[in-house]
Amino acid sequence: MHQMKKLQESCKKNGPLCVGLDTDPSYLPPEVLNKYPGPAQAVLAYNKALITACSPYAGCFKVQIAYYEAMGIEGLIAFAETVALLRQKGIPVITDAKRGDIADTAKAYARAHFSGDFETDLLTVNPYMGFDTLKPFVDFCRPEKSGGKEKGIFVLLRTSNPGMVDIEKQKLASGGIVLDTVGNNLKCLSKELAAEYGVSEGWQGSCSPVGAVVGCTEESDARQLRDTYPEIFFLIPGYGAQGGAARIAATLLDKAGGTVNSSRGILCAWKKDEGLAEQREKGCLTLEAITEAAQKAAKNSKENLLNAQGALRG
Amino acid sequence: MHQMKKLQESCKKNGPLCVGLDTDPSYLPPEVLNKYPGPAQAVLAYNKALITACSPYAGCFKVQIAYYEAMGIEGLIAFAETVALLRQKGIPVITDAKRGDIADTAKAYARAHFSGDFETDLLTVNPYMGFDTLKPFVDFCRPEKSGGKEKGIFVLLRTSNPGMVDIEKQKLASGGIVLDTVGNNLKCLSKELAAEYGVSEGWQGSCSPVGAVVGCTEESDARQLRDTYPEIFFLIPGYGAQGGAARIAATLLDKAGGTVNSSRGILCAWKKDEGLAEQREKGCLTLEAITEAAQKAAKNSKENLLNAQGALRG
Repeated sequence: MHQMKKLQESCKKNGPLCVGLDTDPSYLPPEVLNKYPGPAQAVLAYNKALITACSPYAGCFKVQIAYYEAMGIEGLIAFAETVALLRQKGIPVITDAKRGDIADTAKAYARAHFSGDFETDLLTVNPYMGFDTLKPFVDFCRPEKSGGKEKGIFVLLRTSNPGMVDIEKQKLASGGIVLDTVGNNLKCLSKELAAEYGVSEGWQGSCSPVGAVVGCTEESDARQLRDTYPEIFFLIPGYGAQGGAARIAATLLDKAGGTVNSSRGILCAWKKDEGLAEQREKGCLTLEAITEAAQKAAKNSKENLLNAQGALRG
Repeated sequence: MHQMKKLQESCKKNGPLCVGLDTDPSYLPPEVLNKYPGPAQAVLAYNKALITACSPYAGCFKVQIAYYEAMGIEGLIAFAETVALLRQKGIPVITDAKRGDIADTAKAYARAHFSGDFETDLLTVNPYMGFDTLKPFVDFCRPEKSGGKEKGIFVLLRTSNPGMVDIEKQKLASGGIVLDTVGNNLKCLSKELAAEYGVSEGWQGSCSPVGAVVGCTEESDARQLRDTYPEIFFLIPGYGAQGGAARIAATLLDKAGGTVNSSRGILCAWKKDEGLAEQREKGCLTLEAITEAAQKAAKNSKENLLNAQGALRG
């Protein structure tokens, strides 16, 4: 079974929440941070605690490599251990790296994240330089060419930042907008892969190993994108701290489904937890206390998303 | 002096060649590779030898992080040491990472490559998600906000792969093509930065800290892009192994100038060196022998580029 299908099934079972481990050291209180030899070790300890505490409420975890890269070699060791731990536990893990480059360089990035120290289940990729640049990543999604790995990728389709209007939403002379071009390519790839997996184009109740990043920010977009790409599983950022509503997320979770990322809303839940006001003020928070706050936030997020899905279904 | 200006001056003094350290272990003969505890150590040894041998012929070096990421933690240690060695020697170094992401994540990538273990002089970035995503990188190019670091970035403008037609060259309903939108933004940024550096918009004989990646592949493009962005320094891939001609490179080197990357043409010069035929056949190549072949190739590349520039000037 390919990794996107495994993720889809995990989200059916555990709910659509994706816990985002964008664990910047500044998201930990100083009194916890200082208990470890360095920020990377503190981040790793928090990640381990979060994985245990939040996995009952999560369809998957997403690890944003930028925060680890910012901590240098020690940070990338913590990154590798976090991803490896999730894979050992059989919890679907997405590496959010948005890599993209040409020819042999793209092959190197695909090897970097689908084998070796940083091996992950699913990877985000940037299609800007052209669809030839996606090929090495897609090859890792093929049943035979991947040597049984059958990984999954999420291609940037509609990102959740205001600047997405600058290129993604530009109107084309030939009709449509730039992101339609990307979407059309994803449909072609999904069709090609369906043939290789011996299923119909529509992936009947399953999904393509090629997914898409679709931000949870505009209601008008959400319905249209969901209807245009029924066979494509969505990675949905922009919910929670970024302002996206559960109602929009629920729309995007229809058809092939998706997973809704929440990072800071969970990682930094201790900053707003009323029960922790005194500890926060006295500067005596513990790893256990902040993890518990994160767990409560994950539980709430999951419930909110399930309620919104229920409301949408009427 | 900002890092792009330093690079420009280095290219005026040493010639426009950028030696690309895309050092995949497969670019080394097995008999050299096997002398080291692992591929990352072999790559680092080759890089060190190349830096010494090729620096008289190079305006700068470019290190493509993908090949190191593909070797995991050990690879990234070799990457960090390569970049640090170049900076210690005062040789301008470009990290080719093509990072791009939103908000705090973009800030993390900027910190990752402009401070700490991986600190570099100049970085390539991907503008696809919108111009707001460039801001954290541009802030490191500002005289005050950078805390004196005054780094430089190269934004993807016209890449050298066939797939660049898929998005970069798409015609827009409002006129022009997608990459013009990126170029317009680069002009705005350059104007903004000129004011901060207290120079005129045209950067009189100097250049903006915001550069552009412009592939050396089509003659018609080259002249037009050079004329449209006279104040912008170009990083020029696609020369040599990728098929670009010195004549096209010379066109792109006009006005604010640029640096022309050659990676495999130099790293793998030993594979075609006639003087090494016997050693190659017998499998007794040495690090010294392959480095000497690379040095000859770098010297030739530099001369070819200078000759083409001379021919263009008439």
